[in-house]
Amino acid sequence: MAVIINSSCGGGGEDSEVHRVCLPPKRTTMEKLKQRVGEIFFPDDPLHKFKNQTLPKKLLLGLQFLVPVFEWGPQYNLKLLRSDVVSGLTIASLAIPQGISYAKLAKLPPIIGLYSSFVPPMIYALLGSSRHLAVGPVSIASLVMGSMLTQEVSATEDPTLYLKLAFTATFFAGLFQASLGLLRLGFVIDFLSKATLVGFTAGAAVVVSLQQLKGLLGIVTFTTKMEIVPVISSVFHSRDEWSGPTIMMGVLFLMILLSTRHISMKNPKLFWVSAAAPLTSVIAATLASFMFSSKLHGVKIIGHLPKGLNPPSMDMLLFSSSHLAVAIKTGIVTGILSLTEGIAVGTTFASLANYPVDGNKEMMAIGAMNMVGSCTSCYVTTGSFSRSAVNYNAGAKTAVSNTVMAAAVLVTLLFLMPLFHYTPEVILAAIIITAVIGLVDYRAAGRLWKVDKLDFAACLCSFVGVVFVSVPVGLSVAVGVSMFKVLLHVTRPNAVVLGNLPGTQIYQSVQRYGEAERVASFLIVAVESPIYFANSTYLKERIMRCIREEEELIEANKETAGLKYVVVDMTAVSAIDTSGIELLCEVRKTLEGRSLQLVLANPGGTVMEKLHLSKSLQLFGSNGLFISVGEAVAHISSLSKAHREVI
Amino acid sequence: MAVIINSSCGGGGEDSEVHRVCLPPKRTTMEKLKQRVGEIFFPDDPLHKFKNQTLPKKLLLGLQFLVPVFEWGPQYNLKLLRSDVVSGLTIASLAIPQGISYAKLAKLPPIIGLYSSFVPPMIYALLGSSRHLAVGPVSIASLVMGSMLTQEVSATEDPTLYLKLAFTATFFAGLFQASLGLLRLGFVIDFLSKATLVGFTAGAAVVVSLQQLKGLLGIVTFTTKMEIVPVISSVFHSRDEWSGPTIMMGVLFLMILLSTRHISMKNPKLFWVSAAAPLTSVIAATLASFMFSSKLHGVKIIGHLPKGLNPPSMDMLLFSSSHLAVAIKTGIVTGILSLTEGIAVGTTFASLANYPVDGNKEMMAIGAMNMVGSCTSCYVTTGSFSRSAVNYNAGAKTAVSNTVMAAAVLVTLLFLMPLFHYTPEVILAAIIITAVIGLVDYRAAGRLWKVDKLDFAACLCSFVGVVFVSVPVGLSVAVGVSMFKVLLHVTRPNAVVLGNLPGTQIYQSVQRYGEAERVASFLIVAVESPIYFANSTYLKERIMRCIREEEELIEANKETAGLKYVVVDMTAVSAIDTSGIELLCEVRKTLEGRSLQLVLANPGGTVMEKLHLSKSLQLFGSNGLFISVGEAVAHISSLSKAHREVI
Repeated sequence: MAVIINSSCGGGGEDSEVHRVCLPPKRTTMEKLKQRVGEIFFPDDPLHKFKNQTLPKKLLLGLQFLVPVFEWGPQYNLKLLRSDVVSGLTIASLAIPQGISYAKLAKLPPIIGLYSSFVPPMIYALLGSSRHLAVGPVSIASLVMGSMLTQEVSATEDPTLYLKLAFTATFFAGLFQASLGLLRLGFVIDFLSKATLVGFTAGAAVVVSLQQLKGLLGIVTFTTKMEIVPVISSVFHSRDEWSGPTIMMGVLFLMILLSTRHISMKNPKLFWVSAAAPLTSVIAATLASFMFSSKLHGVKIIGHLPKGLNPPSMDMLLFSSSHLAVAIKTGIVTGILSLTEGIAVGTTFASLANYPVDGNKEMMAIGAMNMVGSCTSCYVTTGSFSRSAVNYNAGAKTAVSNTVMAAAVLVTLLFLMPLFHYTPEVILAAIIITAVIGLVDYRAAGRLWKVDKLDFAACLCSFVGVVFVSVPVGLSVAVGVSMFKVLLHVTRPNAVVLGNLPGTQIYQSVQRYGEAERVASFLIVAVESPIYFANSTYLKERIMRCIREEEELIEANKETAGLKYVVVDMTAVSAIDTSGIELLCEVRKTLEGRSLQLVLANPGGTVMEKLHLSKSLQLFGSNGLFISVGEAVAHISSLSKAHREVI
Repeated sequence: MAVIINSSCGGGGEDSEVHRVCLPPKRTTMEKLKQRVGEIFFPDDPLHKFKNQTLPKKLLLGLQFLVPVFEWGPQYNLKLLRSDVVSGLTIASLAIPQGISYAKLAKLPPIIGLYSSFVPPMIYALLGSSRHLAVGPVSIASLVMGSMLTQEVSATEDPTLYLKLAFTATFFAGLFQASLGLLRLGFVIDFLSKATLVGFTAGAAVVVSLQQLKGLLGIVTFTTKMEIVPVISSVFHSRDEWSGPTIMMGVLFLMILLSTRHISMKNPKLFWVSAAAPLTSVIAATLASFMFSSKLHGVKIIGHLPKGLNPPSMDMLLFSSSHLAVAIKTGIVTGILSLTEGIAVGTTFASLANYPVDGNKEMMAIGAMNMVGSCTSCYVTTGSFSRSAVNYNAGAKTAVSNTVMAAAVLVTLLFLMPLFHYTPEVILAAIIITAVIGLVDYRAAGRLWKVDKLDFAACLCSFVGVVFVSVPVGLSVAVGVSMFKVLLHVTRPNAVVLGNLPGTQIYQSVQRYGEAERVASFLIVAVESPIYFANSTYLKERIMRCIREEEELIEANKETAGLKYVVVDMTAVSAIDTSGIELLCEVRKTLEGRSLQLVLANPGGTVMEKLHLSKSLQLFGSNGLFISVGEAVAHISSLSKAHREVI
């Protein structure tokens, strides 16, 4: 029997009942490259809408693609507006105190937090495709920016340089985000697995809460470090600085805020209780501090805040400074983090309300708003989880709610700034703690423990990394563990011994299906992963061990039919590389030395192609290649039966 | 129909003809962990020999396991000894000039190269399991050690400290190698894919050859850099230092060596021609330089070499120096590189001569010999490819040939050292160039180009990295590209649309098999990779696109039966994580909104287990889970037919 290797099908012998294993249709290198690039960068085929359309329609679709406001704008009506105004004002009442608080977390002047709640939401309303994302500064990105920039420049000693670095980092964050979207490299954020993010976020929440002890206890000299050990020791070393009135006020408002949060969580319809609480608390605390200012010694207040709109900050971007590297690094890290949060929040609420969100377009929108933001005195912003949830519950219908929020912030910036003069800093600390406490998702951690121990370990590692070492280390641990998990899976794939389900052509794991029966003279092994350099050594050892165990079993059972054929089920082998091909040839050679025949069942398209190109296909010959395990077993059995009868 | 989730089998309905999809047998977390650890670290089940043996037999086996010489020693006879003496002397004639040359490459005194060819081969003869590995210094590890240590300490300005660092790095290399073996973490070296190694080695060969221009042209002031651009420019800037007699001598011997190499490659039986050439050349050149020393101006000679055995160097190991970090880093990098070369060479010749080599045991042997070596004035050693090939061709039968070589080196060290006084350095340069030129494997690069373009790109990247940037950068590029390839494959898996081969239960890619027919009302998609965080977003987009394209096709063909069922063939989905489970649930929900039903076919054991633990299995119900695509199609079709008949 000759094997026709140059035709597009090979193997299977001359028997007409046996199906031949086909090579995929021939394509040139360019065609293959084109298809591969298409699969990598355009899995959703974003241009399919443009097919078979007239030119004006194409132009309109293109405009709608770039600026989604043109898509939903024409259908906008008064009823939608009413919902959006209500939700916009609600999130504004949250955004103003949170903006001031988060800016302090990033060690920036409080006013920057308000500026960042004004321009970016308006840009997002034009470009974004999520209807519920409430845009503004967020805790994690603020914390990371603060901790990364402080390593280079002190915010207290050189505030101007620090501010410039913050804007520069914001610019690069935006540039990076927009580039990811434009180049369709969104999969970069896929590498932060959900498990590690749960751990990282919880760790960051703990770190942020610990930082608030400074404000909550009224401490003046506080460590600049962020890890749990130095912070706790710093808190206890400065016991004489603890301020009684501050602590009392802090604990009181913290309790109020936490109980309103609890009420809203129990009953989502009462979302407005926790939404209104921060602003109400700020007003109440400010009034108290104003009226009893003489009695409240030691209660620090925000002090003077400038009035007026965002000043331009284009000239503050540093592109030729010695600190550029740090700014770029901070930009990329905060960019990835804020993108992860923004996309996750966007897709969560989109799937709740059942409308599509395009990840790559979102990245461009978030990137654009940060680039514009960096030129208008804003720092890194994204969609905040807590405020978006309030937005959703308050009935937001479109991105107009962001515009309403921006308008409310505008009014505040223009007229209400002096009112914040007497706001005690302790109330900001209480607001931050209440906000970040919701980020500790212990239920998700519990689920991880139940479903996947390795995922839980990843989660725990990044939590410990953030809390005990540092935020950047925690983040690297998170990414490292995620990668390690992927690589571990690739280097240590499964190889399962299959048996036949009686009366069918189905072959299943003998370990899992009690009724699956081993076939005499055959060992059927399914390899459950691509075969390449990282696992070829391992797979060889696994396969050889399976053969040894099978032979031991045959000996123990005193079966008459010895092992003759080793069928490797290649269904799950989605790819092979040069090392993998070598492995197959080596195993084949070793088995030949022991009078065993290696048979491949159902090799995939690319695998066949590579076996063919490397000229290894000939080695397997006509009886070494079958379209399914069932056909391999049937055909080989009938052949050897015929052979015996002839003898 | 109720789904029995708590039994070990679920799905498949009540129909007795339909097979149920089983959960794997219940195991505790500890059992699972034990099995997983076993699969990760002991794929070859190294203790299987010890099963069912008596205690004395067990002890003997254990001793043989640790010190393989006890395994083959008792069968050793005179005939084997004769072969080993011949091959041992042959590789000694190579090892002596190469040892001196490679030590210079590592910027170490030439005598260290000879020391390193004496102690480590003897240790390996005791512990190693390869019969053909010729142990000693090698070019790549020498080059890397030289280039990494020079960044910290200059070998010319502070030779003692440099020497101490080299021994310390050797100690850590050995420690690292032995630990990898002991902890059975051999898969670390699997991450250097063969493709990137081809590129890295070729690049290193170019860099090494360029460095030899110094010796070949007799240049005195030479750049300390290694990259192609500064080296070439340095060569031309010091044109006035070029020494005529040196160049003549160099070119002459280079031509002799290259042609002997050519002869041996054409006819492997004449291996002794190229094996004897280096030593003969050294002797001839030394004689010439001794006799015509007055006439050969500018031809640099080695000069005084100390006589005597390896001095102990235990006290030269620096464990508390400020340079410790560099020593550890250099140790790990050279350790990995030399391990990769040693294991590759060992397995290559083992498979040629058909005997087993245990990777983990080899690591321990190589690690032990480097640790002992670092205490006896040796630097990093491993199995050299060129010398092992000569060893194999010269008929070596056991590791005794290494002992014979060590004895020859011993004689040289004790008595013959003064003879090397007049050896010209240019001959060493010629020997190195001849040795490394064989490392440029352009044929392998050509095969890579033909079989796998991405592998070729990886190969090219690491070549360019080494030649144009630096050796460590080239190495990082090599590792990075290898990892990237794995990750790219994981993040962008295939999803293939399947059709039925008429008259069978076989479902195959409609793109690849022309005869495969789409089944009316069904879309069958095979996912060809584990589903987890890194690809869940992508897979969702891919599946949704498949559905859209199928619907467009139905519309274009004006088929009457619309799409009703989406069957996901999970055969190749070997694992799933929490993000993957979420993806399945999300796709299910989205499809439900469009009146489509999602059906899973043949989910694997661990996948079933996780779906069950996360309580997602219930969602799929009795008609959403089948043991194979064939049963899913058959059962659902018959159900809906019955349903139509009832109506």
